[in-house]
Amino acid sequence: MNKIVQTAITPTREEDYPEWYQQIVKASDLAEKSPVRGCMVIKPWGYALWENMVRVLDEMFKATGVKNAYFPLFIPLSFLEKEAEHVEGFAKECAVVTHHRLEKGADGGLVPAGKLTEPLVVRPTSETIIGDSFAKWVSSYRDLPVLINQWANVVRWEMRTRTFLRTSEFLWQEGHTAHATAEEAMERTRQMLGVYATFVEEYLAIPVIQGEKTPSERFPGAVDTLCIEAMMQDRKALQAGTSHFLGQNFAKSSGIRFQSATKQEEYAWTTSWGASTRLIGGLIMTHGDDDGLIMPPRIASAHVVLLPIIRKASERQSVMEYVGQLADALREKVYGGRRLVVEIDDRDIGGARGWEWIKKGIPIRVEIGPRDIAADSVFFARRDGAHQEKQSLKRPDFLEKISEILDQIQANLFARALRLRKDHTVCIDDQDEFNRFFTPQNPEKPEIHGGFSLSRWCGSAECEAETKERLMVTIRCIPFEKGPNEVGPCVCCGRPSDRRVIFAKAY
Amino acid sequence: MNKIVQTAITPTREEDYPEWYQQIVKASDLAEKSPVRGCMVIKPWGYALWENMVRVLDEMFKATGVKNAYFPLFIPLSFLEKEAEHVEGFAKECAVVTHHRLEKGADGGLVPAGKLTEPLVVRPTSETIIGDSFAKWVSSYRDLPVLINQWANVVRWEMRTRTFLRTSEFLWQEGHTAHATAEEAMERTRQMLGVYATFVEEYLAIPVIQGEKTPSERFPGAVDTLCIEAMMQDRKALQAGTSHFLGQNFAKSSGIRFQSATKQEEYAWTTSWGASTRLIGGLIMTHGDDDGLIMPPRIASAHVVLLPIIRKASERQSVMEYVGQLADALREKVYGGRRLVVEIDDRDIGGARGWEWIKKGIPIRVEIGPRDIAADSVFFARRDGAHQEKQSLKRPDFLEKISEILDQIQANLFARALRLRKDHTVCIDDQDEFNRFFTPQNPEKPEIHGGFSLSRWCGSAECEAETKERLMVTIRCIPFEKGPNEVGPCVCCGRPSDRRVIFAKAY
Repeated sequence: MNKIVQTAITPTREEDYPEWYQQIVKASDLAEKSPVRGCMVIKPWGYALWENMVRVLDEMFKATGVKNAYFPLFIPLSFLEKEAEHVEGFAKECAVVTHHRLEKGADGGLVPAGKLTEPLVVRPTSETIIGDSFAKWVSSYRDLPVLINQWANVVRWEMRTRTFLRTSEFLWQEGHTAHATAEEAMERTRQMLGVYATFVEEYLAIPVIQGEKTPSERFPGAVDTLCIEAMMQDRKALQAGTSHFLGQNFAKSSGIRFQSATKQEEYAWTTSWGASTRLIGGLIMTHGDDDGLIMPPRIASAHVVLLPIIRKASERQSVMEYVGQLADALREKVYGGRRLVVEIDDRDIGGARGWEWIKKGIPIRVEIGPRDIAADSVFFARRDGAHQEKQSLKRPDFLEKISEILDQIQANLFARALRLRKDHTVCIDDQDEFNRFFTPQNPEKPEIHGGFSLSRWCGSAECEAETKERLMVTIRCIPFEKGPNEVGPCVCCGRPSDRRVIFAKAY
Repeated sequence: MNKIVQTAITPTREEDYPEWYQQIVKASDLAEKSPVRGCMVIKPWGYALWENMVRVLDEMFKATGVKNAYFPLFIPLSFLEKEAEHVEGFAKECAVVTHHRLEKGADGGLVPAGKLTEPLVVRPTSETIIGDSFAKWVSSYRDLPVLINQWANVVRWEMRTRTFLRTSEFLWQEGHTAHATAEEAMERTRQMLGVYATFVEEYLAIPVIQGEKTPSERFPGAVDTLCIEAMMQDRKALQAGTSHFLGQNFAKSSGIRFQSATKQEEYAWTTSWGASTRLIGGLIMTHGDDDGLIMPPRIASAHVVLLPIIRKASERQSVMEYVGQLADALREKVYGGRRLVVEIDDRDIGGARGWEWIKKGIPIRVEIGPRDIAADSVFFARRDGAHQEKQSLKRPDFLEKISEILDQIQANLFARALRLRKDHTVCIDDQDEFNRFFTPQNPEKPEIHGGFSLSRWCGSAECEAETKERLMVTIRCIPFEKGPNEVGPCVCCGRPSDRRVIFAKAY
């Protein structure tokens, strides 16, 4: 028997996870689809989240010596072609600029004119154009390392798009560094992966597994790709950040050469690493529930909403004054490195008001009416608890404990997500069990399957391809942290294997 | 007789101002040309300047209730065509995306493939695409005003480009607001112009004249364009920010309608306003001298560089320790809303080191050797003074006075720029005098002419066009602040005029 519970988001996660995702993006007011195929409009509530991500990541990058710069949006086609694997990887999804003006066509409408002699590709990533600058900047070992980051928009013409997760245009940062030795470049590759892992776990409250991609899943042109992988609530994996060791591939194609301390002419060793607005999709799918978004306090667009309860016009002034004072007192507080962001919503729209803020995922909602004012107490609800479950604290206590309450919400969200991942991560050694694990039990809910399987893999691309073909399951990463009994037969072919990898369905 | 003085920038401003500009951009390490026609690479030293501008402006916008959002890079051609004047204004300089992938052509090289059914224009500005969202967001007067800003890159395919001043791609912010009444929209237009004026004067130390553009100089599709204009050292004008009252033009073409309090269906009134990386060009041309850039402290990429003087290896440790401690003490200080940014340069490259920092325009250079350490004193030079003119202060005094010294530099730069503008702004009523004022006296230096002329104008587009054609002089603005004897004959045609406007050559 189904218990009938009304939820703010229809359908629920269990009923239809992909559709739940589309609905929550809309209901939370984070973003909307645009009239341009596959592009999104990031609305103020969503953009504030991104601004917080940018601020925190930017500080973390700079603390490692990285400096920001900006490179052209357009990449000449000949640049992209310099690195064979790279162009192969991006050719199918490039927006190409071919003309530089518009003029009246035969039917009176405007048509492209002024054909470019060389087409320009809207950057899908900037290794080649940044490499060109690095080649100019570097001539001696004294010029190294070069540690650069760029905050930018990029375009990858995706055929099937989903807001935040896969869009034709998205916002991201791309770090690019050049080093004198392979060891130093590899160390930087690992260091930046560590920055992503720290950021995603401590701010977004999303637990991640750090590891290395298999050759077939590497960035086009990379020697090694490291990644962080997270489990969403439908038990699928989301790649939340990647860091690439590019060896000398791009240094050779771009001509990044330097004279070493021993007067040898050498090619530099480069890295690149990126994280994008996709993280917002990951945050939604990790924490959202059937009533909407839940924002981890340390990254939330705002922390607290004050909802004045005004039943008579005569109460209005005194309630609003009290609300204003409480807002001011809260805004003095610093939490997670920034001042508390407080919203006041005095719209007279009944119960819809509270529900709007629930859907938007604000960590704390406070209702303030004449009775609360008389008692000088604050009646509040946590977004990570049941909506009915409200608490009351004397105002001074609320102000004193607000950081602690936000920390509790942050920790609770992380713990929940970690529990989900633990509950759905298993070591599978048997192929039949592996197949069952990834086969949806209920044909009406094809989305729901087992989760992450830590299974042995012989290292062959064939086993990997076969598994992908058969079950739509890929190797997400070879985790840095070893599992139990690493040595044994490959779960696909039975040949010997000395390691366990994470198999999962993925976004 | 010429006195021979060696300068770090060749040529000097007087010798060849345009070439001086190109050389200073290079020597200051702000930016470099890119292999993509008309696009620039903003290097870390230049990007740090932009980051400071973004941070300050962003705070100022938010203080007026504006929120940030993000809209697609691509605009469908049909959107641009909705507003006739608008598309007319931008059609000649649009980068057009016509294909969405690359494939092998007949000769084996890659060629554009996957033709789009409708070409996409890379945004030159976003009124039409943002208008489309506003139309969805607004249905009642309760939804107004909508106050949005976007930080983004835009592309205008310029035929003649100059780094920062006129580039095919540039970075900017574009604010877009929608209001219930014309008055409110006009008030917002003026308010944001005021924000720009405050920012440019108080942070960039560039004095500006606020005014209104003539109809022929308006933004394509605007009802009224307000602007701030600054005088560069070659006495030409630079438009440093514009704020547009768009009337109902874009609301009508995008369908931004709302139901008023009296239940009438009405079109909203919109505004847009923007400032860009062009401001960096303005900063260079206002403050730079023949030895390089001079950065106003309140916006500078860094405030102080510490230059250790190490003559013997045995001194190294003690000098570097002292330098490190001084840097830490300085970094504790807050100036202009942010912590002091301190660079330490211990490269052993002789006199070139000091000159590099002079060219880069850092406000304060400090040399620290064993003698300074013994005396616990700081030997420093201000970038706005003569390089030889160094001062010495006891370390505690230096730390105490650093903010005051930076303020003095900031004020000095503004005062210098204001003096230059005053010295070269005149009221001219006679046409012959007007012609002489704008005619270079020395044919070998065609750049040098009179400056700004506050002259009467009858209001006719013919007089404006004739002056532009004959002297390359345009009306920069109709200043808000009235001049002396506003009523009298037009300087071009002699017909009656009731106002003075700023005539100038312009970037």
